[in-house]
Amino acid sequence: MKNEYTAYGLRAVIEAIKAEKPINKVFLQKGLSGHLYKELEHLVRKKKINCSYVPIEKLNKLSKNNHQGVVALVSPVRFQEFNTLIERIVATKNSPLLLLLDGVTDVRNFGAIIRTAECSGVDAIILAKTGTAPVNSDTIKTSAGAAFNVPITKVDHLKDAIYYLQGSNIQVIAATEKADQSLYDLDLTAPIAILMGSEDRGISTSLLKLANHKAKLPLLGSIGSLNVAVACGVTLYEAVRQRIG
Amino acid sequence: MKNEYTAYGLRAVIEAIKAEKPINKVFLQKGLSGHLYKELEHLVRKKKINCSYVPIEKLNKLSKNNHQGVVALVSPVRFQEFNTLIERIVATKNSPLLLLLDGVTDVRNFGAIIRTAECSGVDAIILAKTGTAPVNSDTIKTSAGAAFNVPITKVDHLKDAIYYLQGSNIQVIAATEKADQSLYDLDLTAPIAILMGSEDRGISTSLLKLANHKAKLPLLGSIGSLNVAVACGVTLYEAVRQRIG
Repeated sequence: MKNEYTAYGLRAVIEAIKAEKPINKVFLQKGLSGHLYKELEHLVRKKKINCSYVPIEKLNKLSKNNHQGVVALVSPVRFQEFNTLIERIVATKNSPLLLLLDGVTDVRNFGAIIRTAECSGVDAIILAKTGTAPVNSDTIKTSAGAAFNVPITKVDHLKDAIYYLQGSNIQVIAATEKADQSLYDLDLTAPIAILMGSEDRGISTSLLKLANHKAKLPLLGSIGSLNVAVACGVTLYEAVRQRIG
Repeated sequence: MKNEYTAYGLRAVIEAIKAEKPINKVFLQKGLSGHLYKELEHLVRKKKINCSYVPIEKLNKLSKNNHQGVVALVSPVRFQEFNTLIERIVATKNSPLLLLLDGVTDVRNFGAIIRTAECSGVDAIILAKTGTAPVNSDTIKTSAGAAFNVPITKVDHLKDAIYYLQGSNIQVIAATEKADQSLYDLDLTAPIAILMGSEDRGISTSLLKLANHKAKLPLLGSIGSLNVAVACGVTLYEAVRQRIG
């Protein structure tokens, strides 16, 4: 199993970002200054990389080496460029099946979702650059290695991704309890992207508004929702069922 | 959230067992003897309670009190008696939907499965007394409290439970990749019990032989199986879909 690794040192992390390495997070030492440090901060902001300002003790724990006040966690999985990936899928697939994740934060849920996506033939998983669980070694383990097989792409804003998908004739179906329609009443054989929300808040209101359809699963007990990885599995497999049927 | 609690002391644990308290596990000090100790050992064996012989240091960690060489972990959830429960379900439900778990050992998977069972209207979850994740506070948390709503019953041997169910005209459907039939080709509206296997070994061969049907889900990638909680969700919700349809 390939693991998440660390890049450290101002110049090294700047080069890693410029080389488009799949960085999960950058840790910067609080209160630093200097030319290179400013350049790095600027790059992190420009590329919308997940970033925290921390005390030096935290950095010393992350790297035993001379980190110069910066450590980056680099994913073992390479992310794909959104536009290129979607264009390729639209050009080559009869009826794309995509998965949009709005803020799934639990690594084990995320891993199980990637595994399910691989098994159900999902063409790509689309995440926001911030607010989502990292693709680290735990994610890869709980994905049973599927994280190496399913194309994953990270975007600045899911909103823009949704506009782009809809412009490519891909309908967005939000899986939410706040829906009038049952999942089972929807045609899932058309080109679609399934939108799943986070464990605690569900799908954010601004994204929910953009969805072409909102679909719910029947809940026959008194608990108000399923675990997100389970709900995602049920939804993707309903698409599989309709498509093979 | 009610938590798993400990009972300790020879007499107290004997009385807890006699009072049919839902005991997850008994820890006994290695090398003890004496009349009451023998009585306790006899009861533990007779009731097929999950049990470990441990050094005194382990017991001291489990209980700060005078434990006399025995500590029992008691579930916050009361288990139901198998025969009574099944008879009641068969007598009152049109088409029972049951869930048999053969050795699901991960607490988080177990919790997610209980949550899914509650949401999909499962009438009872049936477990073996040993070899399954305990119903403790973590299980209850990941079940979102569903463990208090879905009847759970523990049996000595799942084999006997399967014979009993089949004798009550409930068909057992094993969810396994080792199947010729697709889940989607089966009628799940009849009285059924879904049998799910463990994370690492799947369903044991001796139980697989007893199932009325073996059903698989389409796996469209290269990963050989889904996470067990996800597979369970997909299977139970296919039953829901057919039943409401």
